[in-house]
Amino acid sequence: MDITHLRAQTPGCTESAFFDNAGSALHTEHVTRTVVDHLHLEARLGGYVAAAREDARVEAVYASVARLLNARPEEIALMDSASRAWDMAFYAIGFRPGDRILTSRSEYPSNGLAFLQAKQRHGVSVEPIPDDEHGQVDLDALAEMLGRGGVRLVAVNHVPTYDGLVQPAAEIGALARRAGALYLLDACQSAGQLPLDVREIGCHLLSGAGRKYLRGPRGTGFLYVDREVVTELDPPQIDLRAATWTGPDSFEVRPDARRFETWERGVAALLGFGAAVDETLDLGLDPIRRRIDTLAEQLRAGLTGLDGVRVHDRGQVRSGIVTFTKEGCDAQHLVDGLRAAGVTASVSRPSGARFDLRTQKPSEVVRASVHYYNTDAELGRLIDGVAKL
Amino acid sequence: MDITHLRAQTPGCTESAFFDNAGSALHTEHVTRTVVDHLHLEARLGGYVAAAREDARVEAVYASVARLLNARPEEIALMDSASRAWDMAFYAIGFRPGDRILTSRSEYPSNGLAFLQAKQRHGVSVEPIPDDEHGQVDLDALAEMLGRGGVRLVAVNHVPTYDGLVQPAAEIGALARRAGALYLLDACQSAGQLPLDVREIGCHLLSGAGRKYLRGPRGTGFLYVDREVVTELDPPQIDLRAATWTGPDSFEVRPDARRFETWERGVAALLGFGAAVDETLDLGLDPIRRRIDTLAEQLRAGLTGLDGVRVHDRGQVRSGIVTFTKEGCDAQHLVDGLRAAGVTASVSRPSGARFDLRTQKPSEVVRASVHYYNTDAELGRLIDGVAKL
Repeated sequence: MDITHLRAQTPGCTESAFFDNAGSALHTEHVTRTVVDHLHLEARLGGYVAAAREDARVEAVYASVARLLNARPEEIALMDSASRAWDMAFYAIGFRPGDRILTSRSEYPSNGLAFLQAKQRHGVSVEPIPDDEHGQVDLDALAEMLGRGGVRLVAVNHVPTYDGLVQPAAEIGALARRAGALYLLDACQSAGQLPLDVREIGCHLLSGAGRKYLRGPRGTGFLYVDREVVTELDPPQIDLRAATWTGPDSFEVRPDARRFETWERGVAALLGFGAAVDETLDLGLDPIRRRIDTLAEQLRAGLTGLDGVRVHDRGQVRSGIVTFTKEGCDAQHLVDGLRAAGVTASVSRPSGARFDLRTQKPSEVVRASVHYYNTDAELGRLIDGVAKL
Repeated sequence: MDITHLRAQTPGCTESAFFDNAGSALHTEHVTRTVVDHLHLEARLGGYVAAAREDARVEAVYASVARLLNARPEEIALMDSASRAWDMAFYAIGFRPGDRILTSRSEYPSNGLAFLQAKQRHGVSVEPIPDDEHGQVDLDALAEMLGRGGVRLVAVNHVPTYDGLVQPAAEIGALARRAGALYLLDACQSAGQLPLDVREIGCHLLSGAGRKYLRGPRGTGFLYVDREVVTELDPPQIDLRAATWTGPDSFEVRPDARRFETWERGVAALLGFGAAVDETLDLGLDPIRRRIDTLAEQLRAGLTGLDGVRVHDRGQVRSGIVTFTKEGCDAQHLVDGLRAAGVTASVSRPSGARFDLRTQKPSEVVRASVHYYNTDAELGRLIDGVAKL
């Protein structure tokens, strides 16, 4: 991986040592230009004429995302965010009273809110799976919970947003499938930093974001829907994209993943997202994963060596997300101080995730999420900055 | 209105005589620049840092949309499309079996599909209101239908997409309110071409698009929610924007229109949308309306004078949407021929709207939707083009 070259293609690299990749990562010039070029085309020709002209490129985005996930293009829906993608999948499940939802303690709070809404609406039970000694989903406990029957859905986020761990997605998938439960993987933080293979993972549904590790524009996301289950899922909302009005009183919903899409969308952002996915595929997820892992472990080691600094990442397998605190120094103060020193990190609030309440986690941590374009020198600036604050 | 000046600010005016404003209108340079500038800021600083820096400008968009509608900023939600806005409102209504939905025959098919889905799910009845002799909602018939009781929702599109008429929105509102029904106005095609005052119209809910007559970017829309009813409406989907997780098993949904929003969104497009709304407000909806009306009536007169050409617009009050056919010449052929002559128009398929099936409308028409930046000379090119094809 030619890091100097990759950084030269990323204008934001000269602005700060950037560690908010789990928030919204830096784009390459090519991605920004792809969006901007289409905006100019729209300004010249009008949005619909411009879209019709670029129709083949829009279709190619489905193929690229399919390649990213080892899926088929008809199993992909393109969305305006990962939240929307996750929502369209979750709310399409026709829950019945007494259905059980199993989830991880590290689940993203927005997903947790949706579970509680389903509990209120449909009388489902929401059961956090215990963590094992590494902080990951306890697979024995999961097997035991599945064995009791009645589990409709296992919903787990692959890489938690507040913690450096990677959940054992494929092991969870094998157990969920064996028990006949649907499996929804929130890959919001893993898409673009880990190799993802939906066949290997065994998920029926997978949602992801464009703006994070895939380095796409904001306002983009995607949903994978296993074609074996797609027609069992009832889109929470339909429009002319999702369905056809076939008679005075009848309609037909599309038999593919696009039943979850809305006709209108920002085509410019979508094309930029496609460009970002293609750049990721060209680099290859294996080298990306290796590089991120090396940098993240190096950062953890450097931070751990500092007085009063504690790294909070759990997990046997860890992601590019590094979380830490410094004694006597609140997280916002640290982030502001780093910012003044030309380092971009963010504050994360694990307290938002109520399933985690009984754990000993601090309510706020600094999150420094590394990407392959970060350098040793940047890690040094971050570590120095934390030492001095 | 200084049309020469307004056209000079609109790059697309030199490309074609543009009559697809009901599809996706031409942007001003300022709108495009607003989007592009923010994309560059995101590329430099990262999406989250860029958004935090522009927070006040994002908030100002709510105020601008509120001003456009004579609403309060807390009654506005910003969305990625008008479809999403309409959906979030419609699917928030907790329908009970036997509830009645009244709608116009000219309703947009996507809305019709949602009605049928509600019929299937909740056992509501969906009842198209008859047209009067002008093709508009028959107010006497509506009063009579409301009088029979049990109407939960009156849902009407203000300006149909396939027809030049304007529905009597305020008269419908007065009747719906008196009967205790919710009133959802789809203002997708009217926002930006007609003055809109939610207090005068009496709607509880109003959805609109950014990309059409408001001349904003694609991927933008908005929803107005009357603060008197907002807490009765149950957001179909919630996330961290819409709700707060208050205890292990409890959550609180926001008490304002943002309960319908999703946290993640394309901030660049949203800022561009705000710029477009401000430009509209600066010009004033009254002069915009007068100019569009003059041009559209002039176009209808010109087309009606041609051999074999029929204008299909109904209504006592008419919009900027002009629909026509030419004997022996299918709509797509006309649009392609016009395109070759430097005129942008589109094909519309009223047959998609199944509530209209029993009317004598053609299955396809040409739609030429005029905006204030069109000129007499452009009308002439369109009329000449149609004459020659």
